[in-house]
Amino acid sequence: MKTMANPQQRLRLGFVGGGLESSIGSTHRYAASLDGHYQLVAGVFARDPERNLAAAQAYGVAPERAYADFEAMARAEAARADGIQVVAIMAPNAVHVPASLAFLKHGIDVICDKPLAASLAQANALLDQVRQGPALHLLTHNYSGYPLIREARELIARGAIGEVRLVQVEHASAFGTHPLEQQGVKALAWRTDPDQAGASSVLADVGVHAHQLLRFVTGQEVSQVSAELSTLVPGRVSDDNAHVKLRLSGGGRGLLWASFVAAGQRHGLQIRIFGSSGSLYWHQEQPERLELRHQDQPHQVLRRGESWLSEAARQATRIKAGQPEGLLEAFANIYSDAAELIKARREQRAPAPLARLCPTAEDGLRGMAFIEACVQSDRQEGHWIEVS
Amino acid sequence: MKTMANPQQRLRLGFVGGGLESSIGSTHRYAASLDGHYQLVAGVFARDPERNLAAAQAYGVAPERAYADFEAMARAEAARADGIQVVAIMAPNAVHVPASLAFLKHGIDVICDKPLAASLAQANALLDQVRQGPALHLLTHNYSGYPLIREARELIARGAIGEVRLVQVEHASAFGTHPLEQQGVKALAWRTDPDQAGASSVLADVGVHAHQLLRFVTGQEVSQVSAELSTLVPGRVSDDNAHVKLRLSGGGRGLLWASFVAAGQRHGLQIRIFGSSGSLYWHQEQPERLELRHQDQPHQVLRRGESWLSEAARQATRIKAGQPEGLLEAFANIYSDAAELIKARREQRAPAPLARLCPTAEDGLRGMAFIEACVQSDRQEGHWIEVS
Amino acid sequence: MKTMANPQQRLRLGFVGGGLESSIGSTHRYAASLDGHYQLVAGVFARDPERNLAAAQAYGVAPERAYADFEAMARAEAARADGIQVVAIMAPNAVHVPASLAFLKHGIDVICDKPLAASLAQANALLDQVRQGPALHLLTHNYSGYPLIREARELIARGAIGEVRLVQVEHASAFGTHPLEQQGVKALAWRTDPDQAGASSVLADVGVHAHQLLRFVTGQEVSQVSAELSTLVPGRVSDDNAHVKLRLSGGGRGLLWASFVAAGQRHGLQIRIFGSSGSLYWHQEQPERLELRHQDQPHQVLRRGESWLSEAARQATRIKAGQPEGLLEAFANIYSDAAELIKARREQRAPAPLARLCPTAEDGLRGMAFIEACVQSDRQEGHWIEVS
Amino acid sequence: MKTMANPQQRLRLGFVGGGLESSIGSTHRYAASLDGHYQLVAGVFARDPERNLAAAQAYGVAPERAYADFEAMARAEAARADGIQVVAIMAPNAVHVPASLAFLKHGIDVICDKPLAASLAQANALLDQVRQGPALHLLTHNYSGYPLIREARELIARGAIGEVRLVQVEHASAFGTHPLEQQGVKALAWRTDPDQAGASSVLADVGVHAHQLLRFVTGQEVSQVSAELSTLVPGRVSDDNAHVKLRLSGGGRGLLWASFVAAGQRHGLQIRIFGSSGSLYWHQEQPERLELRHQDQPHQVLRRGESWLSEAARQATRIKAGQPEGLLEAFANIYSDAAELIKARREQRAPAPLARLCPTAEDGLRGMAFIEACVQSDRQEGHWIEVS
Repeated sequence: MKTMANPQQRLRLGFVGGGLESSIGSTHRYAASLDGHYQLVAGVFARDPERNLAAAQAYGVAPERAYADFEAMARAEAARADGIQVVAIMAPNAVHVPASLAFLKHGIDVICDKPLAASLAQANALLDQVRQGPALHLLTHNYSGYPLIREARELIARGAIGEVRLVQVEHASAFGTHPLEQQGVKALAWRTDPDQAGASSVLADVGVHAHQLLRFVTGQEVSQVSAELSTLVPGRVSDDNAHVKLRLSGGGRGLLWASFVAAGQRHGLQIRIFGSSGSLYWHQEQPERLELRHQDQPHQVLRRGESWLSEAARQATRIKAGQPEGLLEAFANIYSDAAELIKARREQRAPAPLARLCPTAEDGLRGMAFIEACVQSDRQEGHWIEVS
Repeated sequence: MKTMANPQQRLRLGFVGGGLESSIGSTHRYAASLDGHYQLVAGVFARDPERNLAAAQAYGVAPERAYADFEAMARAEAARADGIQVVAIMAPNAVHVPASLAFLKHGIDVICDKPLAASLAQANALLDQVRQGPALHLLTHNYSGYPLIREARELIARGAIGEVRLVQVEHASAFGTHPLEQQGVKALAWRTDPDQAGASSVLADVGVHAHQLLRFVTGQEVSQVSAELSTLVPGRVSDDNAHVKLRLSGGGRGLLWASFVAAGQRHGLQIRIFGSSGSLYWHQEQPERLELRHQDQPHQVLRRGESWLSEAARQATRIKAGQPEGLLEAFANIYSDAAELIKARREQRAPAPLARLCPTAEDGLRGMAFIEACVQSDRQEGHWIEVS
Repeated sequence: MKTMANPQQRLRLGFVGGGLESSIGSTHRYAASLDGHYQLVAGVFARDPERNLAAAQAYGVAPERAYADFEAMARAEAARADGIQVVAIMAPNAVHVPASLAFLKHGIDVICDKPLAASLAQANALLDQVRQGPALHLLTHNYSGYPLIREARELIARGAIGEVRLVQVEHASAFGTHPLEQQGVKALAWRTDPDQAGASSVLADVGVHAHQLLRFVTGQEVSQVSAELSTLVPGRVSDDNAHVKLRLSGGGRGLLWASFVAAGQRHGLQIRIFGSSGSLYWHQEQPERLELRHQDQPHQVLRRGESWLSEAARQATRIKAGQPEGLLEAFANIYSDAAELIKARREQRAPAPLARLCPTAEDGLRGMAFIEACVQSDRQEGHWIEVS
Repeated sequence: MKTMANPQQRLRLGFVGGGLESSIGSTHRYAASLDGHYQLVAGVFARDPERNLAAAQAYGVAPERAYADFEAMARAEAARADGIQVVAIMAPNAVHVPASLAFLKHGIDVICDKPLAASLAQANALLDQVRQGPALHLLTHNYSGYPLIREARELIARGAIGEVRLVQVEHASAFGTHPLEQQGVKALAWRTDPDQAGASSVLADVGVHAHQLLRFVTGQEVSQVSAELSTLVPGRVSDDNAHVKLRLSGGGRGLLWASFVAAGQRHGLQIRIFGSSGSLYWHQEQPERLELRHQDQPHQVLRRGESWLSEAARQATRIKAGQPEGLLEAFANIYSDAAELIKARREQRAPAPLARLCPTAEDGLRGMAFIEACVQSDRQEGHWIEVS
């Protein structure tokens, strides 16, 4: 079980994005601070100078460390003795790679929002840098932080459901049900703008979460796809729904559904994995419950916090079974894993093994290749396409 | 609300199939008798003469009306003054069309199990006969009999969720998880034998239920498919899983998943329909509950039996809200609708309007065209294929 | 698994009550006919002669066997060679005992609605007769007919949850939320009339179901009660809510809640039993699901129809797991058990052991003693009272 | 929606209790830090000096501010210019009042765990001090912090379910299922020791949570009780189960069940409130869901985070609907409300109105009076006792 870290050993953290009006920025601040591993000390919070300063002030950041752009920030912070050790990037997709490169080059570790990049080419370029090291590039695929998702991964690895035959995964939200981007709702405007979001808005925004969840839990890759990307809301300029048939590296099959227009749903991320002897079911809106359904036996309901769960699941929690945890705690697990990986690198020691569950740029690259293959399949009338 | 009919006005019913060991036969007997509209008086219950007689005796059928084959039965019953008025066919798929034709020709109405036929060509041949009349050909797509499915149909027709954009439907059972057909389990053996089941076992057995449910509830047709049919259990000679992307006649999109190998599930039929202003969710294993999820409002949970439901839903039930009904009641609704249609035809009057909700050979034909298109798409690497 | 009986071996059945407008009468007709063990041939369906005849006609009963009162019916039927073998009584509570006695005297077996009587004194008088035999007196405590309730009983008997410490049982419906009896709604009018319902309306109508469920599942008696009976709807002349603390014969404790005014609920019957090592949970509105919650292990969800359930559970079902069954099927189990007990008595053989799960007048007597003790405790300001 | 406060405006906080092995201490640290309103700078974390220092070090507290006892701490901190402004007390029940008094006397605000005191007399003595002011005494009845509990309160106040007739509330956990106190498990040992826990262990530990939830949501008081306190685990020296019938100040009735021995449950806090036109249902293990069940309409499911909820509910949340929140967030709401009340007092301004939802010593006093009345009723064989 986790507990709060000593506040005197916090990593110095910078932000790219995360201004006062940013909902994801608020989530990052909560997640980064929850276990006490980070102190926010610098940032480019907003393009508008006044808003940038206002955010700095609200966050307790010295005004001179509220920078105009990420290049300036990387240079200045790298030059300070008390400069940031790690930067968190939560800007629109197209900024992820250039900002990451700016900090990596100065040896500053990076924690970046998904998707990794705005295109596969951009992602490959980033990986060239990342693989040289020494700085780390970690990805906030936050659903990998849920304790019962880690339990599901362990169960499958241990053979609890036999050989994986089928995976049905979906991230189908409702937030684009109405074309609010046409009324200037910002969060929807940039997500449905191909210049900022990339070739498939719906896959970049929610599809890659579903894709990563499948990979994380099964330990398999999506090797081929047959996809249709659709625009179901009149007047929208990006896609808003994706239906993808999957072939998995282990020989299994799958379906992935990503949507902005699942009216009446909320978050809509769920996964079902069917093996040769049983199946698992998990839904993000009830994250404290994992169903293990053996063929020919009563179904089992596993709960977070129990003593008989795997170490991976037990280590990723803060309060007792029965007292619910939620997204902030899962997201904080990613930040805590990242802290351990970063501290270990800086202290030249091996990290705690479970910290390696933290997603990295390599995972992000798989996501970009998946998007690319889906876009191609859609253009080729649903033909099966290899994921490179 | 329904109540039992006068036992003296029962239709004389014959069976093709439904011997003592037949599980579906037992279900038909319960469903046919529940509302008191039918009396079983003749049949070809089994090929083996002894078993045939044993069934007749157990069912209270006179031994001379236990026939060796359906041709003999059709002839003999048509010649009797007290001969059957209607026959129910519950034999393997390949028997559906020839048996149907044998009875239709004698003016005996037919109630037939799905799928309508073993191939699209066979189905078309049957329809040629059916459309000439006068005898009726009705199909036991029994899930159309659930009160809340009828409510869902009304709600969509009334615009309660706006325009239909997405339908996610699945019938994913677990009964073929283990290759028990190789150990002689009969129910699985004929279903996985292409000669008896047709070109796609999994679509013929469960896929058409999902397809019909979509059509019944939305009032739309599946116009194009991109399908993959897979065999996921080693050694099986038929397919056992189907993933199908759908394009709907109204411009919406969908996914259909049909499976025998969803280990740990039971029956696994569920449907979600997403419109421009809300969505509906129904799962056959909790048939008394229909979720209506308006965007921007609290979700609603509708229950069977309430006074504020549509007439179609209220008319299809027998007991009060809160006291659960199940499959036999839904199946009996199909039989009761069929009784009304048959009696109306024989009395040369218009049937009660709601009885027209009973699925017919026309619905069965759509199902066969759907299977045919999926098989073609699968052979053409997932290409989109028109459903003829 | 059950299947329909040979229609030629049906018991001749009479009704007291159950006219065309009677909802419970309709339920009895469905339940009695489902497995094919009974044929309705006589009755006192309604007091009004025209309604009586109309019901007879609708039910296929000869007009001369539609009697003016139960005494006349008992005499006349006993005198016929083809007279009824068994009578089902579904009249208001105050009629149960006199009608039962009329038929028992003539050796006609009785299937009676709960509660057994309108008072404990009346119940004791009936038992004096019943215990002399030979005719049987069986009680339609229909919830004892659910397969998973029978499974729960087996599990507790086998020690699956250890020693029983706590039972929380409730039957809290909403049907008296509004004082509709003041607007002449008949079903509510007689239930809230102390002359017809007895000393506690709410206990006689729903409380005894909860009490019987507790006894059936745990195999224990309620030995002491501390009760409050309340009238929560202004202007109502009977009680409409009961809160009862329980002490059990095995040393455990319990709470029983019976209500007519649980606004927004539907049927509202559920039970939870907590033992020294685990617990069970069942809710009638989801009768196909039984939760077995071991301390220190994953929870288990048991489903009706599985091969690994007890024989008692497997024998009480008609269709496969995953295809839902409901109340009519549970109620029919009581009727089928009763048929077996009655046939065995008449054939002078031992009945099938599981048929003995059918509740009897002895169970009804325990229910009446429970009501009596609750009424006394309520009058004595909640003092603990022995259940005699 | 909440967001993190400026870290430079944090209140200086001290702890009584909350050492490294304390699970509730960890929860307090998370809750206090989440929104950034507090900085932990002093404490008596453990009796053992080494453990005390170890905790101080781990928490970033200067060693000289790790005190030997709360009296010394209150004196020393009151004397410092940078002394604590507020103390959080999370020691065993018997410590609550003496520690509270020590700090209040010095004008230091108090945030105290429930129950308020070890006896009603002690509670009354504390209130004498609290009512004199100026320092505040606030109580961490943390379940009052859940957004949907605040919504329920608003709904009832607005008449959404009509007049309250019935409340069924329970907090039935399993953590005392086995007598682990006899094996030295500390958390259970002090809770089942009457000297440390007070006259009723089970009411002091969980019963008062249920009692407060009822009061908070309905705005009514429990005016009379009929109670039984039981010891269901052999060898235990305290009670471990309470069954309490309730009479409410508005004329309604209720049942309260508090337990340590609900084997197989986890946390087990839930409430149902039935009014004259509908009901509400909430369960702490699914805190993001509130059922509003109108009689004669579809049930509604309200979700946390929606735009159409009350301001009280919307203000108490940090992330979007569909992304789950949990206990830490609810607990942090109490701490944030407390921060607002404390800052307002110190700044001599009126607090934000919604901060007044924070429970206070007055609520704690009602809880102690409730326990006292239950203990008396139990001793008097379940007689109804006025809650003073």
